[in-house]
Amino acid sequence: MRTQVVVIGSGPSGLLLGQLLTEAGIDNVILDRVGKDYILGRVRAGVLEEGTVGLVDRARAGARLHAEGLPHDGFSLAFDGRDHRIDLFGLTIGKRVMVYGQTELTRDLMHHREKSGAQSVYDAANVQPHDFDKGKPYVTYEKGGGAHRIDCDFIAGCDGFHGVSRKGVPERAIRTFEKVYPFGWLGILADVPPVNHELIYANHPRGFALCSMRSATRSRYYIQCALDEKIEDWSDDRFWDELRRRLPVHHAEALTTASSFEKSIAPLRSFVAEPMRFGRLFLVGDAAHIVPPTGAKGLNLAASDVHYLFAGLVEHYQDRSDAGVDRYSALALARVWKAVRFSWWMTTMMHRFPDTSDFDQKIQEAELDYLTHSRAASTALAENYVGLPY
Amino acid sequence: MRTQVVVIGSGPSGLLLGQLLTEAGIDNVILDRVGKDYILGRVRAGVLEEGTVGLVDRARAGARLHAEGLPHDGFSLAFDGRDHRIDLFGLTIGKRVMVYGQTELTRDLMHHREKSGAQSVYDAANVQPHDFDKGKPYVTYEKGGGAHRIDCDFIAGCDGFHGVSRKGVPERAIRTFEKVYPFGWLGILADVPPVNHELIYANHPRGFALCSMRSATRSRYYIQCALDEKIEDWSDDRFWDELRRRLPVHHAEALTTASSFEKSIAPLRSFVAEPMRFGRLFLVGDAAHIVPPTGAKGLNLAASDVHYLFAGLVEHYQDRSDAGVDRYSALALARVWKAVRFSWWMTTMMHRFPDTSDFDQKIQEAELDYLTHSRAASTALAENYVGLPY
Repeated sequence: MRTQVVVIGSGPSGLLLGQLLTEAGIDNVILDRVGKDYILGRVRAGVLEEGTVGLVDRARAGARLHAEGLPHDGFSLAFDGRDHRIDLFGLTIGKRVMVYGQTELTRDLMHHREKSGAQSVYDAANVQPHDFDKGKPYVTYEKGGGAHRIDCDFIAGCDGFHGVSRKGVPERAIRTFEKVYPFGWLGILADVPPVNHELIYANHPRGFALCSMRSATRSRYYIQCALDEKIEDWSDDRFWDELRRRLPVHHAEALTTASSFEKSIAPLRSFVAEPMRFGRLFLVGDAAHIVPPTGAKGLNLAASDVHYLFAGLVEHYQDRSDAGVDRYSALALARVWKAVRFSWWMTTMMHRFPDTSDFDQKIQEAELDYLTHSRAASTALAENYVGLPY
Repeated sequence: MRTQVVVIGSGPSGLLLGQLLTEAGIDNVILDRVGKDYILGRVRAGVLEEGTVGLVDRARAGARLHAEGLPHDGFSLAFDGRDHRIDLFGLTIGKRVMVYGQTELTRDLMHHREKSGAQSVYDAANVQPHDFDKGKPYVTYEKGGGAHRIDCDFIAGCDGFHGVSRKGVPERAIRTFEKVYPFGWLGILADVPPVNHELIYANHPRGFALCSMRSATRSRYYIQCALDEKIEDWSDDRFWDELRRRLPVHHAEALTTASSFEKSIAPLRSFVAEPMRFGRLFLVGDAAHIVPPTGAKGLNLAASDVHYLFAGLVEHYQDRSDAGVDRYSALALARVWKAVRFSWWMTTMMHRFPDTSDFDQKIQEAELDYLTHSRAASTALAENYVGLPY
């Protein structure tokens, strides 16, 4: 079999790239080692930058997102028992974010891919990219008891941090940067109305908390926890009690609780692999970089990679120029590092660190005080939160 | 002897407070353990915020400052071999800083104090504040073989980090916060025209460098150095060579060198003591807080303390209200912590830290990249550099 672009990974970045390519008349096949239901069972973030929404629109997959997504014009930084609203819309002169579950976005993109007739291969075992450094790449996989091979012009590695794409690159060709944070997030999903119509990021002496939502009736809440916490030690009641303690009183009193239907602990990590291109293989999204969830940059950063890669591929096929493809790694990484910095900064500012010095704790408080009283500093936060321009 | 306010310390903050008090008709005596020549021999920073200049004007001591000071509308952040100008004047809509040596300011204030006839006691040994927590404070000292006592209403401790004022407060009444940086500044003074008409703060793989000036013919240069460097190992030639290496080529080539007439190594420290008021004793400036010199906040922070204390004392004597005096510590500390945060941040961003991780180094580079490309982030830097409002 032959196609123009093999996309490894059928998460939102692979699907978004595939859909954009299909719309542009560029033939592509998506391979994933697992099945659709498994992918749709993953619970992920759901705050989309306008740039991300714009790409989904360009892929003509944005109808439900616009119908059901919740536009947010601001969020709250809660500390010292009070809300300090960051007016995203006012500070950025008209930008906002869209709250829409990543799972829903994935579902929409899968639906449109099926309608378009473009090929996806699920449950493909032993997917392996080959010869991407030699100009004639191909991808092999196994399915239905048989070995398969797809020859192609380019391979897009959209298969996440643990995927085969980055691992298929010789170690000596990659430089990695990593920071592991000394805490995790304990998160739950529950079918209760959100405590606030906007997100609340809370810095409290007991630790960070985040009040988020998927819809007007489904809430997503997180609390900072030690890395060695065990999920079985956290009953719903214990979680709600701890969350309440970390919120300003008026929110704690307004909190509606119910049984959770998802509960998990996630570690926090910053990770970047450089470069993001190896001949005719491109790394996209989590395959190349991970950010802690504070500030919700993970999916948006994957979308910005898709933006640069799609532009480069269009230039290759339509203008017969490899300039865009050649620039992909540098362009994508410049924006990646800005978002990695922002996510690191917001994580550092909003969490309580074990073994922090009294001085560092006061610096954190001084930063929150300055940030929420300076229009310039609030604007810097807001412009990063809504997404820096591509 | 009796006066209204005893000011301990005849550095710029003590002199500025004394001169403001004298102008307001509030009787005061300044005590210093050393002599005028010793004080005028200290080499210190010289970038004044507009608020500081305004206080000097209010003390009617600003004539020479305005005649000889150099107004600066911006400065350069140099990294990656290039200048990135921070347009203070444009970003803050009309604010600038004034470059004027601290020694010259001290000289001006001493001159005006002498003209006013207000009393200063130099070479006062064993200065000691007493009974400031009991409502009837007094200060003792020895001079000319005799013991002396001054009864007063208030004591202003303007005698620096090592002075007796903070040390005279019971340890249990003070909470301190400190950070010691793993490097120092090696600085020289030389009578050469400055390499640039504005300051250059350089971040280079070999370490930080700062090109500053005292006048159009006198330059002050610094380079980051290890804490265990010895001054005798640094010939002028070695200093100039190292400085050149850390500057963008066009500056390195334009650098005029000559024999230095002052050369010293200073450690970098952040320090804050809380509170800043103990009954009728007030800590002012370095007696209560130290900042690393990056961003030139030390003297300006002392001036902002003077601003709040002077306002409180005027309220006490003119309006018979202690509200301002009671608020002194909280008001001063709120601004102190913002400047301590800024100085810490600018130090962290501009220096190379031993044992930094590759990730942290990339974050530093991403921060410089973001900062110099975002108007909001540049404005936040600029508004701190010119001085946050009182």
